[in-house]
Amino acid sequence: MTIRKHAQEVSREERAALKTQRPCVIWLTGLSGSGKSTIANCLERRLVARGRHTALLDGDNLRHGLNKDLSFTEGDRVENIRRVGEVAALMADAGLIVLTAFISPFRDDRELVRRLLPEGEFIQVHVATPLDECERRDPKGLYRKARLGEIPHFTGISSPYEAPDEPELRLDTSVDSVEKCAGIILTLLAARDLI
Amino acid sequence: MTIRKHAQEVSREERAALKTQRPCVIWLTGLSGSGKSTIANCLERRLVARGRHTALLDGDNLRHGLNKDLSFTEGDRVENIRRVGEVAALMADAGLIVLTAFISPFRDDRELVRRLLPEGEFIQVHVATPLDECERRDPKGLYRKARLGEIPHFTGISSPYEAPDEPELRLDTSVDSVEKCAGIILTLLAARDLI
Repeated sequence: MTIRKHAQEVSREERAALKTQRPCVIWLTGLSGSGKSTIANCLERRLVARGRHTALLDGDNLRHGLNKDLSFTEGDRVENIRRVGEVAALMADAGLIVLTAFISPFRDDRELVRRLLPEGEFIQVHVATPLDECERRDPKGLYRKARLGEIPHFTGISSPYEAPDEPELRLDTSVDSVEKCAGIILTLLAARDLI
Repeated sequence: MTIRKHAQEVSREERAALKTQRPCVIWLTGLSGSGKSTIANCLERRLVARGRHTALLDGDNLRHGLNKDLSFTEGDRVENIRRVGEVAALMADAGLIVLTAFISPFRDDRELVRRLLPEGEFIQVHVATPLDECERRDPKGLYRKARLGEIPHFTGISSPYEAPDEPELRLDTSVDSVEKCAGIILTLLAARDLI
């Protein structure tokens, strides 16, 4: 993605160099209750402890702001993810390591985001905690409502989740602790020379 | 704006502290051709030279990405500025000094953005270069097309520009050089202890 056109403009490389880091987007995808946001928060805290400049995008700060005009119909869910991807790309352009935590159930939508970023800067992490475990946790009571038919198009119940074919990482919080999951991502980022 | 809710989350203060700066949004508003983007680029370069962490939002990186679904009807122009404001607020939340360069002709829309940000973090700069000078420059040939009726709802010609009543600054690139205008903004930021 080439955004900057004029020689006098500050380049994404200059912005990142100031922070002595390489920008990237760590895209956490998975079912509701799989542990995406918890991992993202833990990972961000550890990145910040290392002096990394980060941003975190999740339903909490997007659904009440930028995307508050969107419903949960399929079309609006696609638009939700498109906007998240665009904002993540702008933030990476500003030199940040961006963490996103969205169910993002559709493969095509996630691939659209990948294409917004330079090669190697989109790190897709599938938080593949099994449905029965997510439903058992049901932290927001959403699965219960979905089973009662009170929430239509609920991912995993009445709407499909398309698992990534080749995610950069696959994690499962029913097997590994959140701390361990965050550590696995950190190891990958280090191996790819991103941190 | 309180986005972060949980104790384990990284706060906007922590993000800004890492960069040893206070976040803010420098909102440049004014007619097409008034010099907004040129000032923004010059200002950003000078901020980066001082080690400040910045981001720049303008039509170039928004209209082809996040806002590519929007037209230039009044409703879509309002939505354009709303989204810019939300993204600027997210970036300020990530600790950045955000520069925006949009005509943003409507007072209410700009005030909506101000309310997204903590007190004192919205710096409205009116680039008040007179219409006849903007039209004389006509860098993109848009005024000519607007006069020919080829562009409907063109700000200053066939659509109003609502000047800010009390902008933090008012600049005029027909009087002062771009360098001087950027310097005036830097002086204000320093006076407000923002840099």
